[in-house]
Amino acid sequence: MTKPLILITNDDGLFAPGIKALLEVVKEIGTPIVVAPDSPQSGKGHAISIHDPLRLNKVDTFGEDVEAYECSGTPVDCVKLARNVILKGRVPDLCVSGINHGSNVAINILYSGTMSAAMEASLEGIDSIGFSLLDFTFEADFEAGKPFVKEIIEYTLKNGLGESKLLNVNIPKLPRNEIKGIKICRQANAGWKEDFVENTDPTGKPYFWMSGEFVNNDKGKDADVWALENGYISVVPCMHDLTAYRAIAGLSDLAKDVS
Amino acid sequence: MTKPLILITNDDGLFAPGIKALLEVVKEIGTPIVVAPDSPQSGKGHAISIHDPLRLNKVDTFGEDVEAYECSGTPVDCVKLARNVILKGRVPDLCVSGINHGSNVAINILYSGTMSAAMEASLEGIDSIGFSLLDFTFEADFEAGKPFVKEIIEYTLKNGLGESKLLNVNIPKLPRNEIKGIKICRQANAGWKEDFVENTDPTGKPYFWMSGEFVNNDKGKDADVWALENGYISVVPCMHDLTAYRAIAGLSDLAKDVS
Repeated sequence: MTKPLILITNDDGLFAPGIKALLEVVKEIGTPIVVAPDSPQSGKGHAISIHDPLRLNKVDTFGEDVEAYECSGTPVDCVKLARNVILKGRVPDLCVSGINHGSNVAINILYSGTMSAAMEASLEGIDSIGFSLLDFTFEADFEAGKPFVKEIIEYTLKNGLGESKLLNVNIPKLPRNEIKGIKICRQANAGWKEDFVENTDPTGKPYFWMSGEFVNNDKGKDADVWALENGYISVVPCMHDLTAYRAIAGLSDLAKDVS
Repeated sequence: MTKPLILITNDDGLFAPGIKALLEVVKEIGTPIVVAPDSPQSGKGHAISIHDPLRLNKVDTFGEDVEAYECSGTPVDCVKLARNVILKGRVPDLCVSGINHGSNVAINILYSGTMSAAMEASLEGIDSIGFSLLDFTFEADFEAGKPFVKEIIEYTLKNGLGESKLLNVNIPKLPRNEIKGIKICRQANAGWKEDFVENTDPTGKPYFWMSGEFVNNDKGKDADVWALENGYISVVPCMHDLTAYRAIAGLSDLAKDVS
């Protein structure tokens, strides 16, 4: 029996411990192919390189038995290059992205390179999962979440994701015996309250550096933030149709026909 | 009576004719404040600058009577800096982004810096509109669409956008007397078929450059692509909740409680 072909990418780059952890899980299930950024790409969202050429190098970062590439572009560029240049006609059975160092709950899906890479693969019709651990440090411990990551990948390969095609999975920063299980959730209505640090560079020119804190006023027990705060792994099925269908009727006065 | 405060941004940069056209419309309606990228940022999606400082300079690009700034970051950075550094506590009555040189129909909303800037303002609770003209050239003629841009802005200021808070407006490349009107639409289920041009640089190193064509298999007459192909301006109300609610029940087998 042919093992499933699983495309692995991330936004923290090829040398992040999170992608290594994800690869270790994938190796137990299928044939991995890794295409990841050659530099950290956190916060790159769904950015693509239109005005710049892209570099692609085969690497042996994960040993000779793992086909792996580093790409000079964004996470979404990685997926596009994987599909069109590396895999050519071959379609992966699954795309997994991560494991991200840091949370991608709520609207972070819009800012996250990890989730945008998974979204890109789903746009191309490939079932995709973005994984994130609620620990942004380089030393983050991915071991506790690995059995769940494996379970979610195996479930997806067996059942498919149907219409949604994309899961946003966040893992609490907890030891294995304190993780309470897996909850299927909606995206919490929560976001960032930014602040900017203002300073001057050595030549005296002012600059601003983004800072901020995550603010959640959504207390719903069906939301991803609630699940994580209560010890569960959150799984949010996502889609790429951003139409606010319920708002269409209310805009009817704006529609007009001038012909 | 105080005129409405309208934040203007885009992704083509401060010197694009599209933002000038949008400013001309806004000046007839309210008090503009322009915060736009200092270089073209097409395709930057919802990217933000986490690892780099941002520069912000006051400029007189649009004359002394228009408060305007150039920013070294992405379109989303522009909105965040405008809100937190320039406007501080003041909340604009509306944010408008564009007029983009080129289409932002269907899933282009994910890749588009223009739409992501508008999305960012909507995330912060500000009614926002992204405008795009289906002509990506620098010489694009924005005159025909201007009366409709004005009408849509005035409608939004008068009625508010309610729950959606974000409109994606695309204008066909047609002379004024051939524009048939305005349709309220859903996002078409259409996307890109990529191709990569492969070449070598002067030192002999290979590179890849993204190329592609837009493919639409969605023939629905309620979709934005249909409206534009039939001479209408398309208006899609958008949202930032990407949860695929209909998929939640189907994933119940994946949920588990281990405690």
